[in-house]
Amino acid sequence: MSTDDLISVRRDLHRRPEPAWREFYTTARIVEELEARLGDDLDELHIGPDAIAGDHRMAVPGDAELTAWYEQAREAGADEEILESLEGGYTGAVAVLERGEGPTVGLRVDIDGLPRAESEDPDHVPAAEGFRSEHEGAMHACGHDAHATIGIGVLEQVAESDFSGTLKVFFQPAEEVVGGGKSMAKGEHIQDVDYLLAAHIGLDHPTGEVVAGIDGFLAVKHLEAEFTGEPAHAGGHPEQGRNAVQAMATAVQNLYGIPRHNDGKTRVNAGIAEGGSAANVIPEEARILAEVRGETTELMEYMDSKARHVIRSAADMHECEVEFGTGAEAPSATSDQELVSIVADVAGATAGVESVLERDELGGSEDATFLMQTVQENGGKACYVGVGTDHPGGHHTATFDVDEPSIGHGIDVLAGAIDRISHEQS
Amino acid sequence: MSTDDLISVRRDLHRRPEPAWREFYTTARIVEELEARLGDDLDELHIGPDAIAGDHRMAVPGDAELTAWYEQAREAGADEEILESLEGGYTGAVAVLERGEGPTVGLRVDIDGLPRAESEDPDHVPAAEGFRSEHEGAMHACGHDAHATIGIGVLEQVAESDFSGTLKVFFQPAEEVVGGGKSMAKGEHIQDVDYLLAAHIGLDHPTGEVVAGIDGFLAVKHLEAEFTGEPAHAGGHPEQGRNAVQAMATAVQNLYGIPRHNDGKTRVNAGIAEGGSAANVIPEEARILAEVRGETTELMEYMDSKARHVIRSAADMHECEVEFGTGAEAPSATSDQELVSIVADVAGATAGVESVLERDELGGSEDATFLMQTVQENGGKACYVGVGTDHPGGHHTATFDVDEPSIGHGIDVLAGAIDRISHEQS
Amino acid sequence: MSTDDLISVRRDLHRRPEPAWREFYTTARIVEELEARLGDDLDELHIGPDAIAGDHRMAVPGDAELTAWYEQAREAGADEEILESLEGGYTGAVAVLERGEGPTVGLRVDIDGLPRAESEDPDHVPAAEGFRSEHEGAMHACGHDAHATIGIGVLEQVAESDFSGTLKVFFQPAEEVVGGGKSMAKGEHIQDVDYLLAAHIGLDHPTGEVVAGIDGFLAVKHLEAEFTGEPAHAGGHPEQGRNAVQAMATAVQNLYGIPRHNDGKTRVNAGIAEGGSAANVIPEEARILAEVRGETTELMEYMDSKARHVIRSAADMHECEVEFGTGAEAPSATSDQELVSIVADVAGATAGVESVLERDELGGSEDATFLMQTVQENGGKACYVGVGTDHPGGHHTATFDVDEPSIGHGIDVLAGAIDRISHEQS
Amino acid sequence: MSTDDLISVRRDLHRRPEPAWREFYTTARIVEELEARLGDDLDELHIGPDAIAGDHRMAVPGDAELTAWYEQAREAGADEEILESLEGGYTGAVAVLERGEGPTVGLRVDIDGLPRAESEDPDHVPAAEGFRSEHEGAMHACGHDAHATIGIGVLEQVAESDFSGTLKVFFQPAEEVVGGGKSMAKGEHIQDVDYLLAAHIGLDHPTGEVVAGIDGFLAVKHLEAEFTGEPAHAGGHPEQGRNAVQAMATAVQNLYGIPRHNDGKTRVNAGIAEGGSAANVIPEEARILAEVRGETTELMEYMDSKARHVIRSAADMHECEVEFGTGAEAPSATSDQELVSIVADVAGATAGVESVLERDELGGSEDATFLMQTVQENGGKACYVGVGTDHPGGHHTATFDVDEPSIGHGIDVLAGAIDRISHEQS
Repeated sequence: MSTDDLISVRRDLHRRPEPAWREFYTTARIVEELEARLGDDLDELHIGPDAIAGDHRMAVPGDAELTAWYEQAREAGADEEILESLEGGYTGAVAVLERGEGPTVGLRVDIDGLPRAESEDPDHVPAAEGFRSEHEGAMHACGHDAHATIGIGVLEQVAESDFSGTLKVFFQPAEEVVGGGKSMAKGEHIQDVDYLLAAHIGLDHPTGEVVAGIDGFLAVKHLEAEFTGEPAHAGGHPEQGRNAVQAMATAVQNLYGIPRHNDGKTRVNAGIAEGGSAANVIPEEARILAEVRGETTELMEYMDSKARHVIRSAADMHECEVEFGTGAEAPSATSDQELVSIVADVAGATAGVESVLERDELGGSEDATFLMQTVQENGGKACYVGVGTDHPGGHHTATFDVDEPSIGHGIDVLAGAIDRISHEQS
Repeated sequence: MSTDDLISVRRDLHRRPEPAWREFYTTARIVEELEARLGDDLDELHIGPDAIAGDHRMAVPGDAELTAWYEQAREAGADEEILESLEGGYTGAVAVLERGEGPTVGLRVDIDGLPRAESEDPDHVPAAEGFRSEHEGAMHACGHDAHATIGIGVLEQVAESDFSGTLKVFFQPAEEVVGGGKSMAKGEHIQDVDYLLAAHIGLDHPTGEVVAGIDGFLAVKHLEAEFTGEPAHAGGHPEQGRNAVQAMATAVQNLYGIPRHNDGKTRVNAGIAEGGSAANVIPEEARILAEVRGETTELMEYMDSKARHVIRSAADMHECEVEFGTGAEAPSATSDQELVSIVADVAGATAGVESVLERDELGGSEDATFLMQTVQENGGKACYVGVGTDHPGGHHTATFDVDEPSIGHGIDVLAGAIDRISHEQS
Repeated sequence: MSTDDLISVRRDLHRRPEPAWREFYTTARIVEELEARLGDDLDELHIGPDAIAGDHRMAVPGDAELTAWYEQAREAGADEEILESLEGGYTGAVAVLERGEGPTVGLRVDIDGLPRAESEDPDHVPAAEGFRSEHEGAMHACGHDAHATIGIGVLEQVAESDFSGTLKVFFQPAEEVVGGGKSMAKGEHIQDVDYLLAAHIGLDHPTGEVVAGIDGFLAVKHLEAEFTGEPAHAGGHPEQGRNAVQAMATAVQNLYGIPRHNDGKTRVNAGIAEGGSAANVIPEEARILAEVRGETTELMEYMDSKARHVIRSAADMHECEVEFGTGAEAPSATSDQELVSIVADVAGATAGVESVLERDELGGSEDATFLMQTVQENGGKACYVGVGTDHPGGHHTATFDVDEPSIGHGIDVLAGAIDRISHEQS
Repeated sequence: MSTDDLISVRRDLHRRPEPAWREFYTTARIVEELEARLGDDLDELHIGPDAIAGDHRMAVPGDAELTAWYEQAREAGADEEILESLEGGYTGAVAVLERGEGPTVGLRVDIDGLPRAESEDPDHVPAAEGFRSEHEGAMHACGHDAHATIGIGVLEQVAESDFSGTLKVFFQPAEEVVGGGKSMAKGEHIQDVDYLLAAHIGLDHPTGEVVAGIDGFLAVKHLEAEFTGEPAHAGGHPEQGRNAVQAMATAVQNLYGIPRHNDGKTRVNAGIAEGGSAANVIPEEARILAEVRGETTELMEYMDSKARHVIRSAADMHECEVEFGTGAEAPSATSDQELVSIVADVAGATAGVESVLERDELGGSEDATFLMQTVQENGGKACYVGVGTDHPGGHHTATFDVDEPSIGHGIDVLAGAIDRISHEQS
């Protein structure tokens, strides 16, 4: 299909990246767009608290942070009525098309941005063409702007096809902190889904390449540790302090030193480490936000257990207390061959797709796995599709960008697969 | 003298602590108070850019920070006209009394707060009596609210005495970051001062005790290091990152490991250490704000040189770049015996003063030393006076507080000494 | 076959474990045993410098160390004439049977012990039955005593079979430091080998299990770093020292912190780290003996390059010099399917073998890979066989031991496969 | 006096430096020399177990080490009968002159060497003139060879003077490990000493300078920590190890990071840190021999307590056990003015002495303080004298050496003071 009219949606979302649970403008914009494009063709549209199980949200920021982003979305012109329903960080949406008899097919796309600055380099397309992030320190550096656009495009295209059954598109918030997947997996809308597709753009695959089924999701868990020591005048009485920054630095050094495990991939990252208040005060507070991953849940838990022990011992060494916050997490998952085969087949016949890989490994984490797991536990099938795009910088870096024609490939392959499922699997 | 009317000034300042170069409300309030109390008795009143050599300010925060505090001062009701003259972080004031023939005597008091939270414990007097800090994360935790009040009180008392000569009171900003002393020492007002007194309250001396001359100032220098690495997806490609938080943690561990020096006291503190942006991104940026001190300037420079080397090597180890900002600093200094003897003598005859120590060691740093050094190099004399106060928590901690009667002791001893100097040293 | 008579050989070797290049007693005992058992049946017996390419030995210890072990072997009663030919650490042997037309088949077994103490626990069989290590701090903790015995047993059994062709058994020294494989791979005897088998006992497989083809050898490299600083009196002048132990400790912490790599397994271990001379002297010297590994040679080289950089930066940070010694190494390798199939087939028909796995991963390193690589590059085939044994403690630990019946399984499977090769591959 | 004949004694001792409790040759040589020079003039000569309280020896090495040095002393030609009385590491001697009425005056000199290599540089006098250490890895790098020589010379000179009273010279072993002082302080011979002199050569004072009274001894304590983890194959199962070298490195980094103390000098040094057995084994054992010091006993105990806590936490972090050995120690002490005045006076009149300082600070530790403390607690007086010598390298370094004329200065000043004490203090 021609995606020219959708590119401007993608660029508008790109200009206003919103990190986890702050997707106020994004959700409102998706909802407005769906209403404008599909109107009465849309059978249901669930927003915010109606789309997710709010109690299962993880890694929600504080009120001040939420309020600031909420106000910013309002000032940017988001629909006030929609915004109100999202208040308090209940973002995301689920759109439903009912087209008679047939299976219930789900498509999950994620919509949040990352808390990092975007490149100002004139070679960076969003900078050159004027749709670079307007929010300082935030960026769509992982293509979720394209994902949201694909979700809209798929709904439009399926609405015009001879699809038979029910289609639910899950616009999921807070994937980057693996905080949103569980709230959609525990919500009501996923429970009757028979076939679930999820999709990601890029992943080092070039434009024109499609991976029918991605596996190798690392199980992941976040650890937030707050160290509390005792302040003291650094010149006058250093011996009276209990130094939380020394505890934090000792922990960081030893977190990265947790032994590798022979059973498979493990990861650890002290993504944020910070503490202290002034040059002349022995630091009394510090914080680490770390994540651990494992090729299996067991390996992730090995890392989690070691990491907590390291952090506790580092606190103890410097006579500090430490408290752990509840961290976000996501399990592992595997794509079902039945859907992989359909996607591979459809992709092979899609214009613009030049290469189809049946399987590949992600080597990262994704909380789409919560939804996949739920569908599979309910007896359904799930599949995670990769849509290649030439991206100049790596995922999560300042020069990441999406090659826009790949958005069309994504829509065509996914809509085509959904249509095929409705006819083959009924 | 009775200080009842000054206590409310001190409490008002305590309620609105402003860190370095953000003393907008504080400066305005001091100026208003001086105008109200002394009126035409005051011969000169220099404010902001007229009080300091603006180019020599060190450790000035960014515009956004300055603007936020400026606005806050305005909202708190500070005089708009005075505020305007302070814009851009040109805070502080110099008040001058001219009383005929005689020496020029200076008194230096500092006025800034600290960037730390104040205790909410009901046993903490400011909390109990309702003048706890209204600015979240800021506190007068070192008694500079009392110092400003003493400066006002001394001007009042000397104005009513038979003092003969010129008195200049320097209300100095930004002592806590050792960023303001140099700008007053390089300014014009200090240049003709013959005798300089500076004062500090507390320092582990109880109410009723006075130290006539304090020495043992540690020379100090601040180092600000910014590490830049390369971000990467922590799950997918940890090997592609260059981890600025690992560099920072390695530096912190080794900064504290710089060898002690046989020639005298040395200090090092990584007061602020922070980096990273998200749990799942290999941290590309980190920062350390450290300070080093030495019993002599040579020892401070030994520490400075070692600290820079450690930081550079840590950056190199993790393939990061590092840049150093211009850090604040202060030299060492010694109190002149001539003034020490006068202060000791006056203190011994002051009501409420029960114990007088001729000399003591500070064991910390102070940028009053810049002013002392300037006066001494110009052929004058300088002396740093300690005024005891019972303080429940240590300096720079959440429960620090001043025992208010000691404010009166400070005013009486300093005003008495200034009067005595004008008669004995003319 | 009955291995009763060979068990006493294994126990004698177990009692006198000799680490890399110190296998004087071991080599002599193997040679004596072969001469006694095979006598004129043996066509060639190459010893020491005739068995290996001496210039390619890696990780050879110093003269004092070699001399001490040489003397010890002499005192233990090893044949003087054989010993003399091994002088200077030229250990190992190659035994050759020529039996007419047919392929040249090689078998490689390693013979060295480890520098670690053996358990004295009465539950540890060698302790209970009186053949525990007599050399303090040395132990056969990886079963090479059994390997040497298997080598002897295979020669005996093949000599009595209808094998047709040439059999060469390589008794390789210095596997534990990956220092001996290259010297045999560069020697003349391997050059005409058409089919090479290598074998290892244990590897977490139980008695009665055989793995026909082992893969997943990690490429490995050893790094030896010597730090040189400056000593000083730790009480009097700590500032005059340049502390090599601080450099070493900083390096150790950061070696374990080298990022994991997405392309596959990596390993790092600071196996020995030591420095300093006395409590009251700032340490002027320190040393790290580390190893790095990778699933591929590229990954090993990634680790090697990072490790060297960490060590250099740590030295620089503490103003020390560092020098690197030439470290031992070994490449990766894969077992050829042709041989795997033969071994699996033979094993399946061998008495006592209850379970045959066609393939498994080693997850460790082995310098048999040098010999495998040489044979494969010359157009031949190679295969690494695992012979299960119940071992109470893990490999390289104090309670490792071999379940002796598995020695018979090893001989039967290997001799059987060699016989089969000679008939099927001629 | 002419010391030509004593120089050869000093050079002989220099050639055979023996570390703590291994002073077999040294003690024997001193005894032989005293017998040869003084013969019947000597009233008592207590050797080994008769000179010290053996139970109070600290930091005694193991039997194998003692035996090796004992044998070496025997091979070097030490008197067999004397040697036998020293067996088991009971070294040292006390020589007594009784000369009628008068006070009992003690002189304490220490006699042990250091476990470090001596320079081979031709500019190093002992190398150039052929009396460089013959014991690899041992050296008289702190002048105790000169001290022993001074002890002999003082006995000779006092024997020929008109001294009246009793002189006891304590040839003390094991000062470098602060392990011998206590055993002499708890012995019987010190108990009736009225006046004690101790002496040290060098200490950064040039030849011709004498310090009459040295203070500023740092209290010191040694900590020996043994870490025990769990070995594992570093390639195959890194996750099964508990890494004692990681524990050790973490401890070292954090030992040096113990906060400085405002009450005075503190020191910490991880003088020996070592662990691991082979490159490919996760290290199961490691050891730290550290020392802590403080300007006062309280400060030393502050450091000791912090250091133990750091070590315990580091062990815990890496799931290792840790055990502490009993460490050597020494208290602080102060020279009595009465003796300082006498020494200063005598020194001022001594040929070759060009400069006399009344007091100086040591800034290091010394277990002469145990003897000084005992004498002072018994009501006597003690004084520690510094005898300047030009030393090319610093104390404890490879190029340390004594300028030999200063040995004569030491003998003259000490013998002179002892003579004076006997006449003035009787």
